[in-house]
Amino acid sequence: MVDIGFIGLGIMGRPMAENLQAAGHRLFVLKKSKAAGDLVAKGAVACESASDIATKSSVVILMLPDTPEVEEVLFGDGGVAKGLTDGKIVVDMSSISPLATKEFAKRIREHGAEYLDAPVSGGEVGAKAASLTIMVGGTQKAFDAVKPLFEKMGKNITLVGGNGDGQTTKVANQIVVALTIEAVAEALLFASKAGADPALVRQALMGGFASSRILELHGERMIERKFNPGFRIGLHQKDLNLALEGARKLGIALPHTASAQQLFSSCVANGGKEWDHSAMVKALELMSSHQVAKG
Amino acid sequence: MVDIGFIGLGIMGRPMAENLQAAGHRLFVLKKSKAAGDLVAKGAVACESASDIATKSSVVILMLPDTPEVEEVLFGDGGVAKGLTDGKIVVDMSSISPLATKEFAKRIREHGAEYLDAPVSGGEVGAKAASLTIMVGGTQKAFDAVKPLFEKMGKNITLVGGNGDGQTTKVANQIVVALTIEAVAEALLFASKAGADPALVRQALMGGFASSRILELHGERMIERKFNPGFRIGLHQKDLNLALEGARKLGIALPHTASAQQLFSSCVANGGKEWDHSAMVKALELMSSHQVAKG
Repeated sequence: MVDIGFIGLGIMGRPMAENLQAAGHRLFVLKKSKAAGDLVAKGAVACESASDIATKSSVVILMLPDTPEVEEVLFGDGGVAKGLTDGKIVVDMSSISPLATKEFAKRIREHGAEYLDAPVSGGEVGAKAASLTIMVGGTQKAFDAVKPLFEKMGKNITLVGGNGDGQTTKVANQIVVALTIEAVAEALLFASKAGADPALVRQALMGGFASSRILELHGERMIERKFNPGFRIGLHQKDLNLALEGARKLGIALPHTASAQQLFSSCVANGGKEWDHSAMVKALELMSSHQVAKG
Repeated sequence: MVDIGFIGLGIMGRPMAENLQAAGHRLFVLKKSKAAGDLVAKGAVACESASDIATKSSVVILMLPDTPEVEEVLFGDGGVAKGLTDGKIVVDMSSISPLATKEFAKRIREHGAEYLDAPVSGGEVGAKAASLTIMVGGTQKAFDAVKPLFEKMGKNITLVGGNGDGQTTKVANQIVVALTIEAVAEALLFASKAGADPALVRQALMGGFASSRILELHGERMIERKFNPGFRIGLHQKDLNLALEGARKLGIALPHTASAQQLFSSCVANGGKEWDHSAMVKALELMSSHQVAKG
C-alpha cells in the first residue's frame, strides 16, 4: 500500500484516483476539492493544502488543466514543494508544456525528490476503464517505483526518456492526431463532393497505405455525423497551443499544426468548443459549403 | 484466355502486362513501345495504333502518365475509340482526373463499349508482385467481367461506385497519405528538437490513437534517413494536382492539401523530385534548420 497524494480530481483525475483507491492505496486529497467527499467516505484523508498532502504522501500525483495550474500547485504558497523530502516522487500526469516541465523537474529535484512527467491519452473512457496510454519522462528508478501505480490507471505505459520527454511525446501525439483528422476530412470532403460515397471510399482506403486509427474511428464519425465527445475541441486546442508555443521557443516551423489550430478556432467560432475533435471537418465544410454526406 | 490490349508499358504498366501474359492471356501492344519487343518475343502481337489494338482486343487496358495522355490515346487520331464495337471494355488504370474520367466514360459508352476507371496504389513493387490495390468505378457487370484480370495484377480490389469514383478514391488516398506524412513529420521534428529520441516517440505513439501505416513506415524512413523511392515526390505532386484542380472545379477548399503541395515543391526546389514522398519532412527541416535525428 502506497500513501498517494492526488491533486486535481476533475473529469480525468477523479476516476484515476478512484482506481488507485480501489486497488487498496491510501489517498490524500485537498479538502476543498468537489470530489473529495466521496473519496474521503471511502477512506481518503482530506488535507488543507498541497504541501500538507506532500508531507503525508510518498507519491504526489497531479492531474491539472494546464502549465500555470501545475506551477502554482508545485511552487505557490502552500505548494507541494514545501512538503517534499528526500525520496518522495512527484508525478505530473497533466498535459503541460514540455519545456516548463524540464524546469519544474529541476526545481523539484533540488528538494531531494524525484519527478516524473507522465501525461496520458485515452480520455475519460480510458480513465474510468484504467486503460490510459501513459507516456513517461524521468529516471528508470523513479519509473520502476511508480509503475505499479501506473498499471492501476493505464495499459500502454512507456518510459520515453528523461524529464520533459513524456510531455514531448504527448504533444507529438496530439499533433499527429489533429493533422490526421484534417487529412481524413479533406479526403472525404473531396470524395463526397465529387459524387462518390464517402463510406465506400473510407472502406476502400482501410487496410491500404492511407489506413490509420483516425480514418477508422473519426472517418466514421464524419460520415455518421457523430460529433458528441469523445475528445473536446477546446482541449485539443490547448494541446496544439503547447505545440505551437513550444515550436516558437524551439525555433522550428509547424505549418500544418498552426493551420489545424485555426480550423479548430473556426469550429469554436461556430459554437463547437464542446464538439468532438473529429468535427474539424465542419470547419472545412463551412468553407466549402458542402457536407460530407452519409452514403 | 482473353485478348487484352495494353497501352502504356512503363515502370508500372510493363510488369502488370507481364503478369497478364504469364497468366496465359494474349496481349496486343503498340509496336512503337520500348517494352514491346520483350512481350512480343513471348507471344504478344505488335500493333500499329491504339485503334488497331482496340479492334483486335476484347479488353483494352491503359496505364498512362496523366489525363491528357489518356484523352489522346482514347480519342486522338488512330485512338482506341475508333476501334471499339459493342461489348468491348476499356479499363483505364492510370491515375487521372475523376471529372475528366466521367466525360471519357460517357464518350466511350457512346461507342457501345463499357468503361472502368481502375487506378492502383502499391507502386512498382506492387505491380511486380501483383499485389496492387485497385479502386474501381463502373458497372457491376463490367467489373465482374474484368475482375479475373484484376486478380492477376492486384489483391485488394474494390468496386467503389460508378465511373469516376475509382479515380476519386485514388485522389482521396493520395490526400490522406500526403497529409499524414506531414502529420508525422511535424510531430517527429518537434520531438527531436525538444530533445526526445524520435525513434522512442514513434514507438510510444504506435498502437495508440496516432497510429497509422504512415507513422509505421514513413516515420521510420524519416528517422533512418532512407529517402530512396518508394514513391517519388514528382508523382505525388501530380496526384495532389488532380486533387487541387478537382477541388477548384468542384468549388471546395482543401487548405492542407494545398500546403502539402507547396512543401513538395520546396523539396523539388532542393533537388528532391526523385526523393521518396516521406522526404516531405526535409522541407520542414529546411524551414526549421533542424533535422529529425536518429536516436
